[in-house]
Amino acid sequence: MVNSAGFGFELLQGGPEGPRRGLLHTPHGTVQTPCFAPVGTQATVKALTPRQLEEAGASLLLCNAFHLAARPGPELIKKAGGLHAFMGWKGPILTDSGGYQVFSLEGMRKTDDEGVTFRHPADGRLLRLDPVSVLRIQRDLGSDIAMVLDECPPAGAPAEIRERAHKRTLSWAAKALEAHLAWGGAERGQALFAICQGGTDPDLRREAARELSSMPFDGYALGGLSVGEPLEARLEILEAAIPLLPAGKVRYLMGVGTPLDFVEAVARGVDIFDCVTPTRNARNGQAFTSGGLVKIRNAEHAGSFLPLDPECDCYTCRNFTRAYLRHLDKCREILFPVLMSLHNVRFFLSLMERARDSIREGAFQDLRREIVKTWGES
Amino acid sequence: MVNSAGFGFELLQGGPEGPRRGLLHTPHGTVQTPCFAPVGTQATVKALTPRQLEEAGASLLLCNAFHLAARPGPELIKKAGGLHAFMGWKGPILTDSGGYQVFSLEGMRKTDDEGVTFRHPADGRLLRLDPVSVLRIQRDLGSDIAMVLDECPPAGAPAEIRERAHKRTLSWAAKALEAHLAWGGAERGQALFAICQGGTDPDLRREAARELSSMPFDGYALGGLSVGEPLEARLEILEAAIPLLPAGKVRYLMGVGTPLDFVEAVARGVDIFDCVTPTRNARNGQAFTSGGLVKIRNAEHAGSFLPLDPECDCYTCRNFTRAYLRHLDKCREILFPVLMSLHNVRFFLSLMERARDSIREGAFQDLRREIVKTWGES
Repeated sequence: MVNSAGFGFELLQGGPEGPRRGLLHTPHGTVQTPCFAPVGTQATVKALTPRQLEEAGASLLLCNAFHLAARPGPELIKKAGGLHAFMGWKGPILTDSGGYQVFSLEGMRKTDDEGVTFRHPADGRLLRLDPVSVLRIQRDLGSDIAMVLDECPPAGAPAEIRERAHKRTLSWAAKALEAHLAWGGAERGQALFAICQGGTDPDLRREAARELSSMPFDGYALGGLSVGEPLEARLEILEAAIPLLPAGKVRYLMGVGTPLDFVEAVARGVDIFDCVTPTRNARNGQAFTSGGLVKIRNAEHAGSFLPLDPECDCYTCRNFTRAYLRHLDKCREILFPVLMSLHNVRFFLSLMERARDSIREGAFQDLRREIVKTWGES
Repeated sequence: MVNSAGFGFELLQGGPEGPRRGLLHTPHGTVQTPCFAPVGTQATVKALTPRQLEEAGASLLLCNAFHLAARPGPELIKKAGGLHAFMGWKGPILTDSGGYQVFSLEGMRKTDDEGVTFRHPADGRLLRLDPVSVLRIQRDLGSDIAMVLDECPPAGAPAEIRERAHKRTLSWAAKALEAHLAWGGAERGQALFAICQGGTDPDLRREAARELSSMPFDGYALGGLSVGEPLEARLEILEAAIPLLPAGKVRYLMGVGTPLDFVEAVARGVDIFDCVTPTRNARNGQAFTSGGLVKIRNAEHAGSFLPLDPECDCYTCRNFTRAYLRHLDKCREILFPVLMSLHNVRFFLSLMERARDSIREGAFQDLRREIVKTWGES
């Protein structure tokens, strides 16, 4: 179940659909699933030290190969001893390939069947990525889990464009897998996950899930969601694709999203999440709490000596009041994003802890009801 | 030696001049002197959590009554239970009166013999401060040590202006002391320090030191230095004023400065320092190290896998390389000022630890020579 490099997924509870519990073993440690991976795009989870992340209960981080390839470049990170040494994070790291970033770029981009050419926004350099070069970058980064290059057509793209992107994504996945296996597969210390695309078309999604499942990837992701579609459309896609993925492999829902999304996706069999929501919203003054969203910039908090969340055990909630946080924000102090991010990341991680506990105790539906009540759009 | 509120200064070693070692007891704990107080102007040492400060060895923090009076206001901080509770710092806090800030303001300001009227830069409100109202604000803040209101004339002011400011500062000090004693003096849990002004005129400084020493303040500060004058002028002032201050009371050199300043001032009998240098320079990419100043933005550090300072024991130096810090700066990541500030504050605190140890061991001149060699302007 665990290979010689330390990689493997162990399904402890559940099956192809419905809430599951598992252990994702990696060369840098074991992750309990369902889990939330804080996002450290540029080799740093914004505003937080690795130690603060560890203390908040983070086990898996997500970094971005696309961004790191431009700055500081894969060569430097390789020379530093890999991403773990470079950023001082000893736990597991998953790197996104950057497909999503490339296809979100404004301006010059040319995609053909072999890869994609574009100007990097950081420095204007003309770059070319293909399914194998993207893997090579992630090999240099030395992440525990690499992602394939995928093509993500814009949300409203015509059927013909979507169909072509779908075919390319599948053919790129096959090429990536071929290279991955030629290099020794996950035994060399890095797993490779496929990405199931297809927009909000359940048939395309089903076809992608079926095709990719027939290839021996180490895990499976669902991409291109949480890009503006309504929650129901998102859940329809999960219900279409997830049952077709191999039950014994880990499933990762990319870039999603909110407490409500989490419980609904866990309810449908998702194991891993990542999202910038906790850190980005923190910087914008929004805290996720057991009582719902707290907008610290609202005047009502100016004289409040309550913590952000009286039920939270994070450093911020144990030591600081809403009045103090609001003061820091008013003064544009750096400590503001630090303390807010710390809380939000802890909130998301703690929600996942509760999800795991409730699955183990057969009480997941209670947690789901509670979250729907607090966070549901009704 | 220590009053019923816990305040008192205990001179362990040394006399009116020359290197000294002591214990400054306050209601919130004891500070070993010579000591460096990191600056938390707005009730936060920029970019650092109280816990990070504690771990870096900080014992005394400086906050600014002028800034806090405008934002969030003394009433709110009083309601929060005082500055310690508000900002989550359990150790001693010294509050500056804001004299320096008021007299550094561009634009509207009117000073008379009773006080000063000005527009606050944060919100444009017309404010009036006088020697007693400034104390009242600091009483609401609940700092362990309050500072008197002083008038700081600009560096190049004519003799007549300087003379008038000198007289006012002395008369304001007397008024402040009267109020302080009427409220119960340091026994009520807050000490009051006088500020010796007089620019770079040794005679004015001597007169101020003599006059203030005749009044029973709990401690004595030297203000209006490190405002552009050369080091020699600064040292001449220290040599003029310090021997006239009571040996048994603590001496505080305000807003100074650099490693070289520290050893030269300790050599002349200063006990307390504060300065924004470590945190401000950190944000500007400059690290203080045992080898001198490291400008992390310089290209030479791009591929350096050394820590900022191989001799430093701080979290930053134990976990991150110059290459990583430079990458964070390039990406404008919040973690950059956090890690840099952590290091610089630790460097200053550790220098003070070494100063105390070397005084105890009779080896201060060795430390002084080392610092002059590394940091001297020659």
